[in-house]
Amino acid sequence: MQFELTKDYLEELKNAVESSSEAKVLELIDGLHAVDIAEILDEQSTKEAKAFYAVLPEELAADALVELDEDTREKFLKEISPEEIAEKIIDNLDSDDAADVIGELSEEKQDEVISHLEDIEQAGDIIDLLNYDEDTAGGLMAKELVKVKVDWDVATCIKEIRSQAEEVEKMYTVYVVDENDVLQGRISLKKLLLAPDKTKIKDLYNDEVILVKVDAEREDVAQVMDKYDLVVIPVIDEIGRLLGRITIDDVVDVIKEEADKDYQMASGISENVESSDSAWVLTRARLPWLLIGLFGGILGAQVIEAYEGQIKIHPEMAFFIPLIAAMAGNVGVQSSAIVVQGLANNTLGLDSLWKRLFKELLVGLINGVVLGALIFTYNFFFSDNLTLGLIVSISLLAVIVFAAIFGTLVPLMLDKYKIDPALATGPFITTVNDVFGLFLYLYIGYLMYAG
Amino acid sequence: MQFELTKDYLEELKNAVESSSEAKVLELIDGLHAVDIAEILDEQSTKEAKAFYAVLPEELAADALVELDEDTREKFLKEISPEEIAEKIIDNLDSDDAADVIGELSEEKQDEVISHLEDIEQAGDIIDLLNYDEDTAGGLMAKELVKVKVDWDVATCIKEIRSQAEEVEKMYTVYVVDENDVLQGRISLKKLLLAPDKTKIKDLYNDEVILVKVDAEREDVAQVMDKYDLVVIPVIDEIGRLLGRITIDDVVDVIKEEADKDYQMASGISENVESSDSAWVLTRARLPWLLIGLFGGILGAQVIEAYEGQIKIHPEMAFFIPLIAAMAGNVGVQSSAIVVQGLANNTLGLDSLWKRLFKELLVGLINGVVLGALIFTYNFFFSDNLTLGLIVSISLLAVIVFAAIFGTLVPLMLDKYKIDPALATGPFITTVNDVFGLFLYLYIGYLMYAG
Repeated sequence: MQFELTKDYLEELKNAVESSSEAKVLELIDGLHAVDIAEILDEQSTKEAKAFYAVLPEELAADALVELDEDTREKFLKEISPEEIAEKIIDNLDSDDAADVIGELSEEKQDEVISHLEDIEQAGDIIDLLNYDEDTAGGLMAKELVKVKVDWDVATCIKEIRSQAEEVEKMYTVYVVDENDVLQGRISLKKLLLAPDKTKIKDLYNDEVILVKVDAEREDVAQVMDKYDLVVIPVIDEIGRLLGRITIDDVVDVIKEEADKDYQMASGISENVESSDSAWVLTRARLPWLLIGLFGGILGAQVIEAYEGQIKIHPEMAFFIPLIAAMAGNVGVQSSAIVVQGLANNTLGLDSLWKRLFKELLVGLINGVVLGALIFTYNFFFSDNLTLGLIVSISLLAVIVFAAIFGTLVPLMLDKYKIDPALATGPFITTVNDVFGLFLYLYIGYLMYAG
Repeated sequence: MQFELTKDYLEELKNAVESSSEAKVLELIDGLHAVDIAEILDEQSTKEAKAFYAVLPEELAADALVELDEDTREKFLKEISPEEIAEKIIDNLDSDDAADVIGELSEEKQDEVISHLEDIEQAGDIIDLLNYDEDTAGGLMAKELVKVKVDWDVATCIKEIRSQAEEVEKMYTVYVVDENDVLQGRISLKKLLLAPDKTKIKDLYNDEVILVKVDAEREDVAQVMDKYDLVVIPVIDEIGRLLGRITIDDVVDVIKEEADKDYQMASGISENVESSDSAWVLTRARLPWLLIGLFGGILGAQVIEAYEGQIKIHPEMAFFIPLIAAMAGNVGVQSSAIVVQGLANNTLGLDSLWKRLFKELLVGLINGVVLGALIFTYNFFFSDNLTLGLIVSISLLAVIVFAAIFGTLVPLMLDKYKIDPALATGPFITTVNDVFGLFLYLYIGYLMYAG
């Protein structure tokens, strides 16, 4: 039932396209969805993809373009004239997708495409949508929806819905508005189907509707739809007029993007990259955090250099440098990850900062005592230097407690000042904890060997 | 419009519950959804929560229970008799939620609850659902759906839908089946509304329907629904009979859980924890990876010990130990994260392993050359030891290339052998790269100082 792309299939398709046997191509793609077509296009060279795209049925071609990887789409659109974009692509899309595609064009080409749109209403919708920031509810919403007036009866409604529904591909809810288009509530198709013809909408509709303002941030829209298990949410303007609706499929993409972004930050990747990107793009995304790591390493070198005399006398101090640095890094990442995830999922609850830090102190102490005891046991049996064993264990405990508290504090602080707390995860927290951990270790060693 | 929980609100609610003023409580919770109620319950002590729960309207109470944090729900259910669970809770839930709640009870209590269910059909549905593994499509699906026979006409359908729809809270699609209940396709309510009464369903329905088998893994269900932007997907058995449907809200939870799990793995957290969990649970989730880190640190100590003589003569070698270890770890995490994310999002494409490793080699070389040159410049200006500068730069380049390739290879191998590739991220890759990086650094140092 589901399509799986293989090399053999690609080869067969390529041959069919090259030999211009349109019937064979159409047979090969029979039953495929736009997203499958996009997957094929992404795997082809630009030349192959262009030839294949030309054979596709118009509506499928338009939908596949929306599903394409952004880079591939950009290349594609450059090769198509504004007139063709307007008539073959935009005309076949819902307003939200249409606005997204047009939004990626140059300003000049945008105007040209819009001037070629035949449906004035559609052109107006798209111009409206282009004005919204793409990170807000306005940037996510589509204008297509079904709405009825609050003072109509069921029969009028159903007649009206029949005429509106032809333009709306997926209908989940019928919105109820007053004469000024101000959203009053919603009514399900099911309820309309079950009600007698003469019933008034005002006696039937549900006035409790969860909605978002047009300038709400997209993360907030996603959180509300996820929390309340909504499939669609209406978008209103400042005075409550119904502007559009956002469907869950767009919000799932937002949720995945946000999760991917946090994951990449925690892994030290600074741009949204995929393994299929070029080596250059991948390097660009990875180098910034590595530079921070390098800088941290240089600081670490300076800390150790400050204790060079001590290492000359006690070279065994050097053995446990990686252990201390690694543990400091690991604990810090764990602590910050828990906070970042709690902030992202809104599950931090109402605990005060002090209560949170106290719990982290406790976790750090337990972990530190267990690991400190283990490393002491190791040193007791495998090293003849008990002072070193004590230094390592005490430093490890101190470093773990510090890293746990620091890892908790930093993302909470960043969030308070409206900076993305995910910035605190990964290499940043690791680097700071590394350097501070080293200092603590060498200083404790200095005190204990001196004492 | 949306509810935000505050300390003041909690206090007011607590006072209302304590003074047994039910009217005041109902006023305070007016307009709240089940998930809001669950948020309140999660923030209360068990005693407070029990008193508050008793005042709630039955249906809201049942739905709120489903939305509760699993630990809190467990505590709650222990205090309620099987009879009450059956009559007050299960009776108000959809089959999937009902099965989830019952599935969390002890075997004995499960039987008791089921024996108290009055609706035999509901009891049968729940027993069916309890038999499916919770990580499969069967474990996600609900039995409630609307279906019509392929040989009916539109009028019969609408009549039948009216009677079925009363039991189905949210209706997205009407499924079309044959006389043996084998799924034939689907028809939208919109199409039914627009069609003349006498039209046959067989001339109207859409026979292209994306579906899943009941034993499909839940990650695969999520991937299909996300890929094809589905709001609901039908579930069939081995011979194609329609068993149930899965809605997008449950799949959004799966997507978030999977993303959270990968994020936690990358951060060295081994269980699904939240910052609100107890210090003990948090420690248990964090200690395993720290033990791996400790073990790696001990290995690192042994590697350095093997070169103790060298460090005695050249203590400056110790300065750059943290830098080499940290960079090896960072690069490895970056590489593995890109692979893990590509596997999770199914965006790896069709490139061969060799092509992938070659690209990683290239990325490693570019990063290694840039960072090696920078650290050489640093050493050239700030240290009078050019040999050390060369050792650090050459080791850094070698370590980065190795870490990049190793970080790419390991998750791909794990995935090939059906092991969760996310296991390879975080502390594991960091630790292995740390230790190997150290060895490489000290060995190169040994060769160059000797040479």
